[in-house]
Amino acid sequence: MNKIEQDATDQNAVLFDLSDRGLLLGDGVFDTSLVIDGQMVQRERHLARLLSDAKAIGLDVKPDRLEHFISEALPPLANGAFRITITRGPAPRGLDLSARARPTLLGKVSPLNPDIQQAPTTLKTSAIRRNSTSPTSRHKTLAYIDNILARRGAVESGFDDALFLNETGKVCCATSGNLFFAIGDKLVTPPVLDGVLPGTVRAWLFEHAAQIGMGLVEASLTLEEAKAADFVLMTNALRLFSPVTKIDDATFPGQLRSAFKLASKMMLESG
Amino acid sequence: MNKIEQDATDQNAVLFDLSDRGLLLGDGVFDTSLVIDGQMVQRERHLARLLSDAKAIGLDVKPDRLEHFISEALPPLANGAFRITITRGPAPRGLDLSARARPTLLGKVSPLNPDIQQAPTTLKTSAIRRNSTSPTSRHKTLAYIDNILARRGAVESGFDDALFLNETGKVCCATSGNLFFAIGDKLVTPPVLDGVLPGTVRAWLFEHAAQIGMGLVEASLTLEEAKAADFVLMTNALRLFSPVTKIDDATFPGQLRSAFKLASKMMLESG
Repeated sequence: MNKIEQDATDQNAVLFDLSDRGLLLGDGVFDTSLVIDGQMVQRERHLARLLSDAKAIGLDVKPDRLEHFISEALPPLANGAFRITITRGPAPRGLDLSARARPTLLGKVSPLNPDIQQAPTTLKTSAIRRNSTSPTSRHKTLAYIDNILARRGAVESGFDDALFLNETGKVCCATSGNLFFAIGDKLVTPPVLDGVLPGTVRAWLFEHAAQIGMGLVEASLTLEEAKAADFVLMTNALRLFSPVTKIDDATFPGQLRSAFKLASKMMLESG
Repeated sequence: MNKIEQDATDQNAVLFDLSDRGLLLGDGVFDTSLVIDGQMVQRERHLARLLSDAKAIGLDVKPDRLEHFISEALPPLANGAFRITITRGPAPRGLDLSARARPTLLGKVSPLNPDIQQAPTTLKTSAIRRNSTSPTSRHKTLAYIDNILARRGAVESGFDDALFLNETGKVCCATSGNLFFAIGDKLVTPPVLDGVLPGTVRAWLFEHAAQIGMGLVEASLTLEEAKAADFVLMTNALRLFSPVTKIDDATFPGQLRSAFKLASKMMLESG
């Protein structure tokens, strides 16, 4: 027996089982990719991570089912942001997993403002820490309320986004982007185990670092070490490569380094 | 443009706007209360906490709207578990709050097995820690994936539920219950700031401790201190007062102390 009061728009309203654990318990994972002319950029990387995230929380989704779903959800000439959500599906009340529902799949393409690509961004360190002991810190689950609240706090202070440290004070990421710090002749990014999502652009950079003349390493960083960098980069599947021009009171160059312009071109061309 | 694959049951399926941030980002809060003959036990406490949780994440829901919703969602003679969910509502893609949607309200009564009340329970310490820096540690948001995974881990090890420590090693709670430890002549429970939900039964106990002859105090506890207790109690709005008979390798009496039997009677009678 369900009662709902929602200001629904006709466009998005469909028949939905309200006992879905994705809605009630944030019990699910998702992925957002850039779509150009109906093609997901870095498609294999996105799907591999989504399936790995699903598995990490015990959701059994066959690659074939996901591929077939995408072929129906993604229009041939779509452009924008394509989000796929996998939830545990409808189930009786409670946290237990005894009743094994079939996972629910959701897919949607949203329009994207191309101006966000490579746009500079500013970060304010959040009082909310990443929890490196939680699988949510390295898998893209629906538990996004910390990100929402941290982002809101940063915006209210006049910044674009928040920077997360983890519970031991190590630098992690922004609310929806990986961070890279040019220190000496290296580009340094925090390891996933510090509480960082393994982003698809991050993975691309590790594969192509040598090709674009970049010495890329994973290393834990304190906030002080991060603020002493010569250049700071944020990566995100939709925004691609953005220079970070400010972290709290520390400022950095706003001009994207040519290596990352090249990287962006290579990544989009390789599909 | 939405695509969905969900094994919906007729009973629970309604028209729903899939852009609701509760579904996509866990952007919401909820409350579950015990309902007897159409009455929410500890109604005012539940509603006050729910509204406070909503406010904490920036959801503006008027008490009048909530009261009116409940009057329509809760059948006059209902018995069981009544869950109210408040989400941020449908919104465009992204984490920002610029488009202020009207919050969505969901309400549902589920049947409840009365055997769970006062039933003994066993706890295994989880490797996943509570994050006391996160508002989700003290507000009942939809970010429940840590609880789900911790519970699953405990059950797979032959325990009923998980015990959470916070990021500094202080004892917090079970996945859906507050904990109380009889130490010397006091009953000790962790403070909310250690990363604990302020449960309704917990609040009731603080108000009535003297009446039931109980010296109740808030204090941070290490796992070792907790395991040295003479008696351990778990409270939950549906299960009420449960003796904890085991934490990892430490065992405790399974007989509920008479003070808590009295407390249960008083609480149910006061409505």
